[in-house]
Amino acid sequence: NPLKIAVIPGDGIGAEVMPYGVRCLQAVGRIFDVQFEFEEFDFASVDYYEKHGDMMPKDWKEKLSKFDALYFGAVGMPDRVPDDVSLWGSLLKFRREFDQFVNLRPCRLLKGVTTPLANPGDIDFYVVRENTEGEYSSIGGKIFEGTDRETVIQETVMTRTGVDRVLQYAFELAQRRNKKLTSATKSNGISITMPWWDSRVLEMSKKFPDVAVDKYHIDILTAHFVQRPHIFDVVVATNLFGDILSDLGPACTGTIGIAPSANINPSGTFPSLFEPVHGSAPDIAGKGIANPVGMIWAGQMLLGHFGYHEAADALLKAIENVLARSEPHILTADMGGKGDTKSLGEAIEKEILAM
Amino acid sequence: NPLKIAVIPGDGIGAEVMPYGVRCLQAVGRIFDVQFEFEEFDFASVDYYEKHGDMMPKDWKEKLSKFDALYFGAVGMPDRVPDDVSLWGSLLKFRREFDQFVNLRPCRLLKGVTTPLANPGDIDFYVVRENTEGEYSSIGGKIFEGTDRETVIQETVMTRTGVDRVLQYAFELAQRRNKKLTSATKSNGISITMPWWDSRVLEMSKKFPDVAVDKYHIDILTAHFVQRPHIFDVVVATNLFGDILSDLGPACTGTIGIAPSANINPSGTFPSLFEPVHGSAPDIAGKGIANPVGMIWAGQMLLGHFGYHEAADALLKAIENVLARSEPHILTADMGGKGDTKSLGEAIEKEILAM
Ligand SMILES: CC(C)[C@H](C(=O)O)[C@@H](O)C(=O)O
Ligand SMILES: CC(C)[C@H](C(=O)O)[C@@H](O)C(=O)O
Repeated sequence: NPLKIAVIPGDGIGAEVMPYGVRCLQAVGRIFDVQFEFEEFDFASVDYYEKHGDMMPKDWKEKLSKFDALYFGAVGMPDRVPDDVSLWGSLLKFRREFDQFVNLRPCRLLKGVTTPLANPGDIDFYVVRENTEGEYSSIGGKIFEGTDRETVIQETVMTRTGVDRVLQYAFELAQRRNKKLTSATKSNGISITMPWWDSRVLEMSKKFPDVAVDKYHIDILTAHFVQRPHIFDVVVATNLFGDILSDLGPACTGTIGIAPSANINPSGTFPSLFEPVHGSAPDIAGKGIANPVGMIWAGQMLLGHFGYHEAADALLKAIENVLARSEPHILTADMGGKGDTKSLGEAIEKEILAM
Repeated sequence: NPLKIAVIPGDGIGAEVMPYGVRCLQAVGRIFDVQFEFEEFDFASVDYYEKHGDMMPKDWKEKLSKFDALYFGAVGMPDRVPDDVSLWGSLLKFRREFDQFVNLRPCRLLKGVTTPLANPGDIDFYVVRENTEGEYSSIGGKIFEGTDRETVIQETVMTRTGVDRVLQYAFELAQRRNKKLTSATKSNGISITMPWWDSRVLEMSKKFPDVAVDKYHIDILTAHFVQRPHIFDVVVATNLFGDILSDLGPACTGTIGIAPSANINPSGTFPSLFEPVHGSAPDIAGKGIANPVGMIWAGQMLLGHFGYHEAADALLKAIENVLARSEPHILTADMGGKGDTKSLGEAIEKEILAM
């Protein structure tokens, strides 16, 4: 049976890198005999919003539920539509309504990639981010609007179900890797939710006696990411802290342009979503210079998710080979090169086809 | 009139670095004729808590209000008292009840200091952190405790008064410096408070047409801190985002061991508080190896706050001179040296006295 994939390019550089993601999947599929059925959608974009007054059609859930996976570019053009409107009308809706409660993001230093760190060491860890609740709530509001007494409230909401299931995923991942889990907290300052988060980590750790657990407050944890990123293996975090750490981590490994993100519904009741970590990047959109590696690597995670491990390994190898050659005319500007989306995307596609 | 300073060493390395902070203030005071009256307090510490069942005496506010400033070490020993109890019973109480609504933290790359960044450039900026409200609220609670339905809520509370006054401070600081202000936001994900924060920044910017304003979402902002820290001048942030950025910034300039923090009540109705950014660091406490520079530099901010600019400049110069010599037997381990708190603290004291 072919993998049915909904292709949602979205806005800005999302739409620019998507074609190379699809081409690389097709290439690796040809060689490893993986069948795909792609269908492209123009919604979940600011263009669509401007035409229809909404980010997606009413029946988006019905339309997309029948796919095995969503392959997603990026959304947002804040000069045209406020970011909270475009994101809550698309990406954040997918994550929540398709119950993609794990957001999995690898941070790995690839050969040939220049990092901002002087002594990066061997960086290879995962950020496991809670992806449906926590600080990204939609509860709260304003009172005394427009006056000096104006007060604005937003609630962080955590549930035992929501937290435990992502912790369990993180512990299982740690168990399959180096048996070391780091929890991101802020229980000294955020005095209700975060001490409770700590207590859930402690509780879950009892089921995984072979996994060594430590925790750091998010402030000092960001410092450790810069100063000793090689000490981490699996880092588990709330929605907001995971968001921060999974931009900072890839920045330490060179550029967020190469980082992928898997929004996983582990039970498979709804499709999972695979996307680059970078956003729509309006500042460089339209120039064809965006780094396509994050998009392509997200396709690699998609393959791994469905058990096509040989194909997934080959695709990652192709990315690594091309980057390791450090050819300036191939690499994009964020990697110090003079190439563009096309040169880098096609180099990886060619590398796959030559395997 | 002498400056009346309440000395509150607190826990762990806070108590270890404090003596050198005081000695350096005394030294610079002797040379520039600044009079101090120090009084030391044993409360706001875990020792005190274990004796009295509370972090501070009932009349702490009365006791401390008559001082010009609090000179504070660090609080917290999580193995003995939960961090939220010790911190909300001391430091966070000072900040809120003494209305120290600005938390000002310089990030500066000093000569001779090794940074984790390969090409740090010229790093010299301030983080201006809102210090009394926002994500550090004490509102919220639990429901269905101990069951599968357990749900935990904590509210972020922002007020126009609270946000506008710290924005105003940040804009004024930017105006005195390079007329460039960066706002840390997350209005794409945190959809109620943060778009409103953006709107307050926009509103305030109208009063400062000569200040160029930009904003970044906190996730990508942490990436920029690592990749191009030299582009920042004044960064304004909510309580939580400011907390994160003011550990990450100093980590990029070498070590958070040298970073100071001024908790300012600009109107002077209550004393301001000066402390190192690092915490009590239980892991290295008791060994005498903590870096005293953050504590000493906090004393330097205290001098500047009260208008003793000549003395403040000299003290910073003394710190810079000692660090610039990069003597391994003087520097502490976090700076790559083989020295300890005493060697580094006394070297700076001696440098001042030789001026
Ligand atoms: C100790 C902790 C509560 C505190 C904070 O989060 O404000 C500290 O990290 C700081 O930055 O001063
Ligand atoms: C675009 C934004 C809402 C999103 C998030 O905060 O989750 C992005 O930063 C990410 O990490 O996927």
